[in-house]
Amino acid sequence: MKFVSAGLAGAFLFAIAGAARAAIKTEAVTYKEGQVEAHSFLAYDDSLSGKRPGVLVVPEWWGLNDYPMRRAKMLAQLGYVAMAVDIYGAGRTTADPKQAGQWADALETGDRAELRTRIAAALAKLKSDSRVDEGKTAAIGYCFGGSTVLELARSGAEVNGVVSFHGHYDTGAPARPGQVKARILACHGADDPFQSPAQIQAFEDEMRKARADWQLNVYGGAKHSFTNPDAGKYHLPPLAYNKEADHRSWQAMQDFFKEIFK
Amino acid sequence: MKFVSAGLAGAFLFAIAGAARAAIKTEAVTYKEGQVEAHSFLAYDDSLSGKRPGVLVVPEWWGLNDYPMRRAKMLAQLGYVAMAVDIYGAGRTTADPKQAGQWADALETGDRAELRTRIAAALAKLKSDSRVDEGKTAAIGYCFGGSTVLELARSGAEVNGVVSFHGHYDTGAPARPGQVKARILACHGADDPFQSPAQIQAFEDEMRKARADWQLNVYGGAKHSFTNPDAGKYHLPPLAYNKEADHRSWQAMQDFFKEIFK
Repeated sequence: MKFVSAGLAGAFLFAIAGAARAAIKTEAVTYKEGQVEAHSFLAYDDSLSGKRPGVLVVPEWWGLNDYPMRRAKMLAQLGYVAMAVDIYGAGRTTADPKQAGQWADALETGDRAELRTRIAAALAKLKSDSRVDEGKTAAIGYCFGGSTVLELARSGAEVNGVVSFHGHYDTGAPARPGQVKARILACHGADDPFQSPAQIQAFEDEMRKARADWQLNVYGGAKHSFTNPDAGKYHLPPLAYNKEADHRSWQAMQDFFKEIFK
Repeated sequence: MKFVSAGLAGAFLFAIAGAARAAIKTEAVTYKEGQVEAHSFLAYDDSLSGKRPGVLVVPEWWGLNDYPMRRAKMLAQLGYVAMAVDIYGAGRTTADPKQAGQWADALETGDRAELRTRIAAALAKLKSDSRVDEGKTAAIGYCFGGSTVLELARSGAEVNGVVSFHGHYDTGAPARPGQVKARILACHGADDPFQSPAQIQAFEDEMRKARADWQLNVYGGAKHSFTNPDAGKYHLPPLAYNKEADHRSWQAMQDFFKEIFK
């Protein structure tokens, strides 16, 4: 018998099965999210029946643009029910960093309580979906969305796990010992200038003291926004897409999901 | 159709196929390794034919005891040809930390050139095996063995990748820009007292300057020797087995191998 990689053989079989059956549907979902009305984006495989794990996708500071929607569809192709979250409300998006910074700062440094309320409302909305196994949920987030899912974990929310991609690690309300129920995976670009070594160290210390179940993956050569193929279009030097780090962190997320949804 | 996890379905199919076909053989291999004669340990699946990737396993400072041999057999079950390396020569092992420290220090801080010579000889021996595709090799190592495989990468050796598990990151001969050909994955216990944040930072800076392809996975709550189920038997407080971190880092290694052997 010729050598065949175990994982590749399994992936190949699944790829055949997946291509035959996938029927990704998307729809808008409207609900009250703290002080705003959210117009979030749901994606699922309509050819599946029965309850499945549900995953929130929290956007970068640009708001619910095409990128988080693509990620939601990718998660649906993996068999999850995914909801890309309109965290700003009213479907607001921008490509202007100044505007994005104002919106993100208003929640991230201005009113973290409101941020927690909004992401909690999004989680409740996802759990209420008839396709979702409400005992199996996760939240992933990018940049400002990474900070948001870490904040969700700090709040003690009933969510199995959170994954931050190039998020920020500081918080005004550090997790207390025993407070964090979610397992945490943080995927970090080693050349992300928005987070200093001291900030990363502080995050590790916070997680350690909180006795959280946490992991930090550091990707050499990766800048901020390393998962986003559109990162270059903003013409900001700290941002760059990094294909290897994108693929590696997406694989790490899938391994993490297999573990937390077991 | 009911929801079935993609990875689990693939893994299940493989488990059936694997159980039916695996026929792990082991044998001693003797060769000249720098100043010593090595008695290393080869493991492979005899039911496979054709050339396969080869993987070195470099032991903890205790020498080539049962633990690295078990890892070699686990790698053989994954389809690789694995060789657990007798890095001290003459099959020397110990359970005495003082003795282990002396042996490791003699190479790690004493004579790094000899350490490089020995691991290079082990790699050459592995590549010479008729079952091994010499264009597809990796080296993994534990503790002192982690340091050793990082040193192999620094030397510019022709090896596709190295994985350090709870290794040490300092070196007397930092990698020069462009020197490192191997991709690098370092799996680190966040509560490993043998490596300070400054040492980890220095390693990241070394890899950055060398323009290496590197990743660092940090596992919260994991001490030194977190992959070794026997860690507790040495009664040393800095050492502890951590089942989650063991499984997660072993999965990360498998993902890494799929990538580097593609």
